[in-house]
Amino acid sequence: MSNLEQDIKDLAGRAKKAARTLVALSTDAKNKVLLHMSAAIDEKRDFIQAENKKDLAAGKEKGLSAAMLDRLELSDKVIESMRNGLSEVAALPDPVGEIEKMVKRPNGLLVGRMRVPLGVIGMIYESRPNVTVDAAALCLKAGNAIILRGGSEAIHSNRALASVLQEALLSQGISGDAIQVIPVTDREAVNFMLSQEESIDLIIPRGGEGLIRFVSETSRIPVLKHYKGVCHIYVDRDADLAKASPIIINSKVQRPGVCNALEGLLIHKDIAEEYLPVLAAEMKNQGVKLLGCEESVKIASGIAPADKKDWGTEFLDLILCVKVVNNMEEAFAYIDEYGSQHTEIILTENYSNAQRFLNEVDASAVMVNASTRFNDGGQLGLGTEIGISTTKLHAYGPMGLEELTTRKFIVYGQGQVRT
Amino acid sequence: MSNLEQDIKDLAGRAKKAARTLVALSTDAKNKVLLHMSAAIDEKRDFIQAENKKDLAAGKEKGLSAAMLDRLELSDKVIESMRNGLSEVAALPDPVGEIEKMVKRPNGLLVGRMRVPLGVIGMIYESRPNVTVDAAALCLKAGNAIILRGGSEAIHSNRALASVLQEALLSQGISGDAIQVIPVTDREAVNFMLSQEESIDLIIPRGGEGLIRFVSETSRIPVLKHYKGVCHIYVDRDADLAKASPIIINSKVQRPGVCNALEGLLIHKDIAEEYLPVLAAEMKNQGVKLLGCEESVKIASGIAPADKKDWGTEFLDLILCVKVVNNMEEAFAYIDEYGSQHTEIILTENYSNAQRFLNEVDASAVMVNASTRFNDGGQLGLGTEIGISTTKLHAYGPMGLEELTTRKFIVYGQGQVRT
Repeated sequence: MSNLEQDIKDLAGRAKKAARTLVALSTDAKNKVLLHMSAAIDEKRDFIQAENKKDLAAGKEKGLSAAMLDRLELSDKVIESMRNGLSEVAALPDPVGEIEKMVKRPNGLLVGRMRVPLGVIGMIYESRPNVTVDAAALCLKAGNAIILRGGSEAIHSNRALASVLQEALLSQGISGDAIQVIPVTDREAVNFMLSQEESIDLIIPRGGEGLIRFVSETSRIPVLKHYKGVCHIYVDRDADLAKASPIIINSKVQRPGVCNALEGLLIHKDIAEEYLPVLAAEMKNQGVKLLGCEESVKIASGIAPADKKDWGTEFLDLILCVKVVNNMEEAFAYIDEYGSQHTEIILTENYSNAQRFLNEVDASAVMVNASTRFNDGGQLGLGTEIGISTTKLHAYGPMGLEELTTRKFIVYGQGQVRT
Repeated sequence: MSNLEQDIKDLAGRAKKAARTLVALSTDAKNKVLLHMSAAIDEKRDFIQAENKKDLAAGKEKGLSAAMLDRLELSDKVIESMRNGLSEVAALPDPVGEIEKMVKRPNGLLVGRMRVPLGVIGMIYESRPNVTVDAAALCLKAGNAIILRGGSEAIHSNRALASVLQEALLSQGISGDAIQVIPVTDREAVNFMLSQEESIDLIIPRGGEGLIRFVSETSRIPVLKHYKGVCHIYVDRDADLAKASPIIINSKVQRPGVCNALEGLLIHKDIAEEYLPVLAAEMKNQGVKLLGCEESVKIASGIAPADKKDWGTEFLDLILCVKVVNNMEEAFAYIDEYGSQHTEIILTENYSNAQRFLNEVDASAVMVNASTRFNDGGQLGLGTEIGISTTKLHAYGPMGLEELTTRKFIVYGQGQVRT
């Protein structure tokens, strides 16, 4: 075993040991340390920003784009948002210890299911160093230890933030090993991290499709991930067209570079003649380029013919695919083929179609008459999120505190034996 | 791609297509086909038993043990139990479509989480062919398609059972692809099955530790498994000793060869002198061999010194390890080190110790004053089980119908957009 492998193994072992002590922490104790962390970040602002400047300088030298440098910077504004995040997580209800479905069995056993932490969570992410604080806060509130592996370009920032958080833990009598940053930038460290299945319970990768594919193909530990968000809106024959345009514009334009932005529009043939020209004009005003099927190109001007490869593409840009469909079944089949099980919307006033769509479409969030942009932990009421899962095991959709826990069975007996 | 690989890929693709249609089946339709399957197994009993005889004959020729041949046989009794299983699954509540936590968000969106099938489940198991029917019934009731890969020694029986189940599906207008058996016994077929992550959503292996390790190390698909059950009872200082012996005997003796049988006993030092000699005598009467720590060997006769490798061993036999501990913390540490996160019990009348044990011990089931044998889907109220998970993602403990589903977000909007 190489030194690095042994170091990672030891680090993960310490995290597991720390996790064992977090189970017994009261909600009050966890909230107190979260607020203490917020204060500590304020106090250590100069240190954090000085370390961050090292990353920014190295980034400039390496020729990072202005956008990437912007994401890397721990400005006063970003620091305030990290501090607010800590207060918000402190204010969220604690899922740990919640007991669901307590029932009395015929033999008198009282059986319930208690929410407990998962244990140790490994987080692998790209540039933004504020994720270090956000993810650590969520994991801690759910009683988990966390091992963070950020991008190499943010290493000074991440180490600085982790040291501030660890001091805050220690000042409250909690093991600093509950929040650890992999201190080296070697790519190999990730491989070693992904094989610590004895100590790490879950890996959450956040970043581009390449990173996520690499992690899920390499990991010996369960991974919660989503590759991409190819979200659709189906405009039903019975859609209220007055509602349609604001929803479509919001879904496509409000923040085109994120996973819950709209990428494809399906429109029922019976309303295509009426609505497509209106939509095309509106989209033009919004600076959105439309790529359409043959039928749609015939109906409205300003729609360029879509290429075969455009269908199902996550553009993350002001581009939208448009397709005319003969009925809802065709919309279902299209979504099955090109969707990414992220967010699927129907616009309709038809009761039965709305219910069928909700029941039958397979995506982490299915909605009627609402913007795709609502598939987000905060918007759906989880308080905040640590990521979105588009696979179905354990979590499907935004993951909040509850998704960072599991349930064990607890049984109150009075001497029962099995017959 | 080899022919076999292409065949497995096609088979999995057909299962995925069938799964799409199962989502829309009503509970009534699913129950009807389950009862129809029960009738069909009765009608086709001669065919099933004739095919089973081929496996039995081949097994005898291969020199399988009497116990293995017994597990392989589809006797009238086993057939009745499969038929009862189908009726029982038909009688269970359907988790699909259940909506939890419907809440109204400040912007008027109604947000809920709807239980939906996982999709396609791959089951890999060893000899007992009745698993074919039990697993197919549970998966179907939860709206999933299933791909079954039984042991090579049961191939005729499994193919016969699957053909009967498929005919029953078809007679009710449901795709026969919802229940498929891998029709060949090549070991390679398993590898190909485990790489169909585009079509299969979950793999459940059932069998020995070797099979389970192989599956979880090879699979590109999420796996729910447990390696072994090393279950403990901690007899607290404040245990009611009148309750202790019946529970310990039941846990160890009722069915020593199963995963929820007792393998280790921890006893508080203050009651060891009083209770260990009593227990040793009772265990002797039950034919149980005791292996103990130094301290316990001194206290009671009939306890052999345990070897280092005995601690944490899953004996699956009439053997029990005994260790004297100084306090509950030592019991926790022992369970952390040697337990398998399966079932852990405290015997106590002390309120605080009972609560601490339930809260802090990490196992899929933790119990007070009850037999380890209650960690079972039927006993804990799930109706029945498809396996027990001792890892924490998705399910922890016995897995019933609910664990064969996931939850998606559903949203009823009235035109909302995100601001």
